[in-house]
Amino acid sequence: MQSPMPVLVVGSIALDSVRTPAGEREEALGGSAAYFGVAASHYAAVRVVAVVGTDFPERHLDTFRRRGMDCAGLATAEGRTFRWAGVYADDMNKRTTLRTELNVFEEFHPDMPSSYLDSPCVFLANIDPGLQLEVLDQMDAPPLVVLDTMNYWITSAREKLLAVLRRVHVFLLNDEEAQMLTGADNVLKAAEGIRMMGPSVVVIKRGEHGALARTEQGWFAVPAFPLDSPQDPTGAGDAFAGGLVGFLARNGGILDEPCLRLGLAHGAAVASFAVENFSVDGLLDLSLETIERRVRQIRDLSRFELELPARG
Amino acid sequence: MQSPMPVLVVGSIALDSVRTPAGEREEALGGSAAYFGVAASHYAAVRVVAVVGTDFPERHLDTFRRRGMDCAGLATAEGRTFRWAGVYADDMNKRTTLRTELNVFEEFHPDMPSSYLDSPCVFLANIDPGLQLEVLDQMDAPPLVVLDTMNYWITSAREKLLAVLRRVHVFLLNDEEAQMLTGADNVLKAAEGIRMMGPSVVVIKRGEHGALARTEQGWFAVPAFPLDSPQDPTGAGDAFAGGLVGFLARNGGILDEPCLRLGLAHGAAVASFAVENFSVDGLLDLSLETIERRVRQIRDLSRFELELPARG
Repeated sequence: MQSPMPVLVVGSIALDSVRTPAGEREEALGGSAAYFGVAASHYAAVRVVAVVGTDFPERHLDTFRRRGMDCAGLATAEGRTFRWAGVYADDMNKRTTLRTELNVFEEFHPDMPSSYLDSPCVFLANIDPGLQLEVLDQMDAPPLVVLDTMNYWITSAREKLLAVLRRVHVFLLNDEEAQMLTGADNVLKAAEGIRMMGPSVVVIKRGEHGALARTEQGWFAVPAFPLDSPQDPTGAGDAFAGGLVGFLARNGGILDEPCLRLGLAHGAAVASFAVENFSVDGLLDLSLETIERRVRQIRDLSRFELELPARG
Repeated sequence: MQSPMPVLVVGSIALDSVRTPAGEREEALGGSAAYFGVAASHYAAVRVVAVVGTDFPERHLDTFRRRGMDCAGLATAEGRTFRWAGVYADDMNKRTTLRTELNVFEEFHPDMPSSYLDSPCVFLANIDPGLQLEVLDQMDAPPLVVLDTMNYWITSAREKLLAVLRRVHVFLLNDEEAQMLTGADNVLKAAEGIRMMGPSVVVIKRGEHGALARTEQGWFAVPAFPLDSPQDPTGAGDAFAGGLVGFLARNGGILDEPCLRLGLAHGAAVASFAVENFSVDGLLDLSLETIERRVRQIRDLSRFELELPARG
């Protein structure tokens, strides 16, 4: 095994109020950098670039510290922490945002501690592409840059997003975003089109249907782990990214086919733990062994032989 | 290999007028028994129970004959053949039915030739559960009965559908239908609930996301083969069933885990050929070798190793 590389994440840290058919939480720890960071911390050292307000509960900082996360880049700004509230429908594939308060996130600019500047693995979580560029501009072309985004930025900040894409190796997005970005009527054509924009690997996230990745070698499909009692899908995509990028960072940041496929299976496994509980709670008490057991279950879930066994 | 068992299908034969983003066809050969029968004919002898009108084109009968299908149970009734017309949206996951004319299908009752009565494998395509019962009542508990249905029958003929279910081994349906049938808010719970109603194997069909099956041993996920130029998704579910049931019939009708998993992969492969062309055209000029090549591609699509290769 290669030695684990540190992973830098820039994203949001939020207080989430969430209601799902399984229950509800008020002002629980959330945000892309929180989900990603806690997930990736099981694989590698995590460096966080984000902002919270002066009201951010100390116990959430303790959560990060207990996971060994480096919070030198976590700024505290005068004001209230970013808040999000949402409610999920009965089948949990549909959610409605009730409230978004950007608060201190509105004026956020990533201020990178000098100790972060050599980070070899970078996850640009779903934030303004202008901020994603500010991060990359402070660094010296990290060998592994992974990007997330959302439909809002595709329409409102397209040129900046395209500038980010040219500097990215792996891009995670969903079907709708892929088609919106390229204008393609088919997600496969969209993924091909996105590869022309920069990233050599495009991962289409499909929630309970798993993920479909276009790599240098072709397509790879990883199923989601079937859960009969999902609790809260919030942050599943960021947890997926945390498992994937964490695994890659732990194994030298190499993007060959075996690393990517096993990394994507780790992403699917970690995402399933996230959905099994509210907030980041399902991601806290994991071990690599626990994750690897689920990766094996995911492997067994889709495994079949091309020949039937001989019968007596 | 076991010797192939004959497969009986009861379902609809239709003249479909279809428009998709890729093109359109007027009064093309369609219907569940047509898609299933042509698909299954690559694996086993197929016996058809269905009805057409006196206007049914001779060339479509020739299509069945060229595929070696036994049409002794294909009745011709005075009147017009069942017609369906529909249009698909740009992403082809949404379709709108423009017109349904039952015509001769309205008075259809399955009249089974005596030569069909010993059929060991039966596919009850999506028709009135009352008719499905009429088929089973004429037979002596076939060892492999596979069922398809739709939301309409779940609400309008629930008791009869439950009576069919008690006599079925494998049930194919989609997420929405599974939840509608059981009232479960989660498709996994729904599949468990359906197993209590009779079938030991429940296959959740998910279109471009593949299928998720609950077997005696647990869950199996098979991805859809990624197509960058799908032409017409009509009949994909019946073609999937044709590949699955055809494969099972060819291999002794055994429902153990290796047979089911490989059979479901054949279903996914055959479905992808159906979608690559309009009507049953993608299913006509196949060979088992061609299908097996695609099964191998589907296997490779989701395959990964639990250990990374050693690096020099």
